[in-house]
Order: sequence, then structure tokens, then C-alpha cells
Amino acid sequence: MNEISIIGGGAWGTALGAVLASDGTQIVLYAREKDVVDSINLSNINKVFLPKIVLPKSLKASDDISSATKAKYILLTTPSQFFRSQLRQISKHNVSDDSAFIICNKGIENESLDLMSDIFEESLDNPYAILSGPTFAEEVASLSATSISLASKNLLLAENIRTVMSRKSLSIHINNDIIGSQICGAVKNVVAIGCGIIRGLGHGENSKAAIFTRGFHEIMRINTEMGGKPETMLEPCGLGDLILTCSSEKSRNFSFGLALGQNKSKDEILQGKLAVVEGVATSKSVINLAKKLKLHLPLCEMINNIVEAKTKPEEILTLV
Amino acid sequence: MNEISIIGGGAWGTALGAVLASDGTQIVLYAREKDVVDSINLSNINKVFLPKIVLPKSLKASDDISSATKAKYILLTTPSQFFRSQLRQISKHNVSDDSAFIICNKGIENESLDLMSDIFEESLDNPYAILSGPTFAEEVASLSATSISLASKNLLLAENIRTVMSRKSLSIHINNDIIGSQICGAVKNVVAIGCGIIRGLGHGENSKAAIFTRGFHEIMRINTEMGGKPETMLEPCGLGDLILTCSSEKSRNFSFGLALGQNKSKDEILQGKLAVVEGVATSKSVINLAKKLKLHLPLCEMINNIVEAKTKPEEILTLV
Repeated sequence: MNEISIIGGGAWGTALGAVLASDGTQIVLYAREKDVVDSINLSNINKVFLPKIVLPKSLKASDDISSATKAKYILLTTPSQFFRSQLRQISKHNVSDDSAFIICNKGIENESLDLMSDIFEESLDNPYAILSGPTFAEEVASLSATSISLASKNLLLAENIRTVMSRKSLSIHINNDIIGSQICGAVKNVVAIGCGIIRGLGHGENSKAAIFTRGFHEIMRINTEMGGKPETMLEPCGLGDLILTCSSEKSRNFSFGLALGQNKSKDEILQGKLAVVEGVATSKSVINLAKKLKLHLPLCEMINNIVEAKTKPEEILTLV
Repeated sequence: MNEISIIGGGAWGTALGAVLASDGTQIVLYAREKDVVDSINLSNINKVFLPKIVLPKSLKASDDISSATKAKYILLTTPSQFFRSQLRQISKHNVSDDSAFIICNKGIENESLDLMSDIFEESLDNPYAILSGPTFAEEVASLSATSISLASKNLLLAENIRTVMSRKSLSIHINNDIIGSQICGAVKNVVAIGCGIIRGLGHGENSKAAIFTRGFHEIMRINTEMGGKPETMLEPCGLGDLILTCSSEKSRNFSFGLALGQNKSKDEILQGKLAVVEGVATSKSVINLAKKLKLHLPLCEMINNIVEAKTKPEEILTLV
């Protein structure tokens, strides 16, 4: 049984593999794409999703999921809208009761409005934690100093995971608020689209700071209503991740918003993109969640309307 | 008696003049530099401090301070370390008791550790408010949509100022926390130096997000200890201003930090600079304020030590 395995060969799964294998730890990464697996195993590179980074030799890929379901700690990086079916697949592989899962994706399921932890609990009985924070994949993979939050209701589990996953360049901050961690991680992608729209419209940093501030308030309101803790908003998974995602074109969500602000349509922007822009699905989930919770969230509603081409991008300036 | 006048012909004073005069309102701006006054009056440009912006014709400059001390609302933009002597000069000019002042600078006096409001109250008996928020001068002057906070213990005064100063591109948010507004506005310049150091060292957005998050925590702790309100941290003058200043080389403080991170010395960077980098003086004040309040602020201390060349810039990475 391996110590650590990773499910999902996108940029984030690969970056986690790179940092965790950086000290020589043997890591197995499951990817469903044959060319990703071959690329990692033959040339120590993920040419599809993380082409600029040379990966450690102790990171091995496999397209056989059973090679990754037998580990003490299993990291899950599958995009949120495919998370339920991924777990269904995993549950068929006799996962040991001793295996703990680390949920590393960010989103809210469109149909059910479930958080990833809800989906996990419906699918498996294993212990789990939520990993979330300001982490551009390429920077994590190139061992640039990074702080990340790890949330679990079981603090002993969180301590164990921290011991196993900490690296010189990866500093892990523990909290026990799985709701807040997930709400912050999911909704910040929507706010990032808003900040991107401002940039795309050609407006400046002042306008973006105003939208950012309003976005933080709306995340805080959803968080409170969902039972998350206010202090989680100020952790790496809260404020830290929000500033990262809203500040740079390296963020897929910010870049998506930027293109919207330049009057491109959602379909036009997403066409041919392999990587998932989580904020697109999440903006829909957030609107429906707000309805359910009877919350009025003008910014999230505006962003969703712009994503769905129901409102012109420049309308967002009315919220500055 | 004019409706609005401005003391200080730097970038910020000029930008405020530009936006307030943008609807045709007559504004008088006092600048002590003869070439600034001539440049504004002869060619509608402040070629020294805001050279890219064509100013409205209704903005007039004067090097006679008495032309600016006779107004209903007087905006003060003098740098913080010269604020006391500026007020001493103003107080000699028979200011009407009806005049209200709007304090627009950000800092903590080195010698006394006084906030700008303390210095004001020691100098004049007039009513006043604090204007603070995410406002790059050039963007305000070019009428890009901007949100700003206005704090006053007297909410009726704040309402009146909002009515007089609101413009299509300038949205004013009122609060009654003059302490919190000033602490946020001053200390964020120190955090911005820290974020700039990270960039200067060649480190990435993940590291910067971690320093930003830690910086927010330290501002919050000073704010609480000084009697500011926690909710002010989330206003444009709090989070909004912090993200602006920490995100862009347009910020003098961020740029200063960036140069420090590239191993330039404080004196080398500041040499020949006309514009004041407020965070340099404030980093010293914050350290002494922390001592007085018995607060341990590892990030602010680290930044001050790097500014004073007592610590190497790369040491900041130990705080990620």
C-alpha cells in the first residue's frame, strides 16, 4: 500500500504530485488520459496540462485507477461536476477502511447544490479532509513557497495529513471548518470572473478593488448562512485564495472573466479548452443556492447573468 | 467662499481636484511648488506629479495657501510626516468655524505615533472626516469607477460631504470608525512593501497571497488594539485598499518593496524620487506602536528590518 496517491491528472493533480514527490516520496497519480500517463512516465512531464514543469522521477502515472485506490492518503482532484461519478468509480475498488481522502477540488454541484464533502459522505464512509488555498499549480509544482489550508472535523487526522504532506515549499495550516473552507474555495471563483470582467472592460485597479471587496462580503454572507465560521474567511483558503484568483491572468476564472469583458461569449471562450473553469458551473450553483437561502447577492447574480449573456458586461460597473 | 478646496498639489491632491472638478465645479488647489501651479493654470496638466492627465478647466491652482483656506470643505493631502506643520500653517489663516476638513493622507507620525486625526484635533477645532480607499490617483483622475470610504464621528457631516463630493465615477461609502479607517490606510502600505519584496525576489503569486493574508491579520490586530471596529477591515478603506496596494506596481509602496527585493537599498530607491513612499515612515511607526501596545507582529517587524537593511529580503519567505 502506497503512502500517497492522487486521482486526476490535470494541472492541480500533477502539481500536487510534483511537490509531494519532490523529496523522493513515491507517488502514484491516476489519470484517465493515456497521453498524460505516457507523457509523465516516459518524459517526466505532463505535456497536456502542465507542460512547463519537469516532474520528479518518483512521481509515476497510471491509467488504472486501482493503482491509486490502494494508498493511505488519497488526494482527489477531479473537477467538481464529475466528482460524484468519480467517487462511484472509486467505491468499486475495495478501498481500505484505513484510507483517508483529501478533497482538493473546489465547487458546488449544479444539480444538488451539494458541497464536495456532502457528495463524499454520500459515496464513501472513509475519513476525509479538505485541502484548499492560494495555489497556482505551476508555482506549487516549481516549489515556490506556498501556504495552504487543510480542514477536517477530525483534527488528529488533519495533523497526520499535515505531517505526511508538508514539504519545504508547502506550509499547511489546519482548521476544523469544512463548510467555510469549501464555500470560500468555490465562490471565490465566481468573484474572480467578476474581477476579470473589470479588467476585460479596460477598467482599472480601483474598480477591481471595489468588486473584490463586494465579492468578499457576498462570500461571507453565504458562508455564514451555510454554517461556516467567520474566521475561516481570513485563512489561506479564504482571503488568501480570493486575492490570488482575483489578481492574475494565471487564474483560469479571472482569464475567463477577462474574455467575457471583451465581449466574447461563454461558448466561444470555453471552446477547445481542456482545463475546466470551475467558476462557470459554480456561478450557476451559487445563484440557486442564494435563492434557496433567500439571500440577495447582487454581484454573484450580475456575474451569472453576464456569463449567461443575459446582461452586458459593462453593467458590472454599477456595482463599483 | 468656495465650496471645495484642496491643500497639496501631489498626485493625490491633483487627482481629487480632477474628479471633483469633472462636473464643472470650481475647485481651488493649493500647491507650494510654483512649477506645479503654473503647469496646472497654463496648460491644465500637473506635469510634475500627474503628467498623463488633462485636468478640467474648472480646477485652478494657487501657491497662496489663503486661497484654499477659505472654503466650506477643505481637503488635506499633505504627506503624513509634514501634516502637523501644514496644519500649523493653515491655522494662521483665520479658517472659518464653518469650514469642515477632509483628511486624505495615510500614515502615523513617527515621533508621536499619532494618527492624522490626533494631529488634527491638536491643531484645529473644526469638524473633520477621513477619506480613504482603493484609489490610484491616475485612475481617479481619468474618471475610472472608484469606491472610497468616508469616516466621521459626525454622520450628518459625512452625509453632507458625500453629497458634495460624489461624482458619477466616485462612489462614497460612509462609516463612523475614524480609528479603523486610519489604521487600515496606514498599515496596508507596510504590507504592500512586503508583497513587493516577494515579487522582487522573483517569487510567485502563491507566496504573495500568503504574505497578504498574514498582513491582513496583523492589521486586524493593531486595529482591534487601537479601538478600531472589526467591520471596518472589510470596507473599501480596509480590504479594498489593501488589495489595491498589494497587487500592482502602480503602488509606490509595492514598487518600493519590489526594488528592496532586488537588493537595492532604501536610500538608493528613494534617491531623486519626488513622490513620498508613505510605507517607509509608517513601517517605523508601526514597529514602535506595536512595542507600545505589546503586540508581536512578525511580518511588520520583518518588513521594517528589511527596509532598514537589518535583515536580508529573502528572510521574508520564512513567513509564507
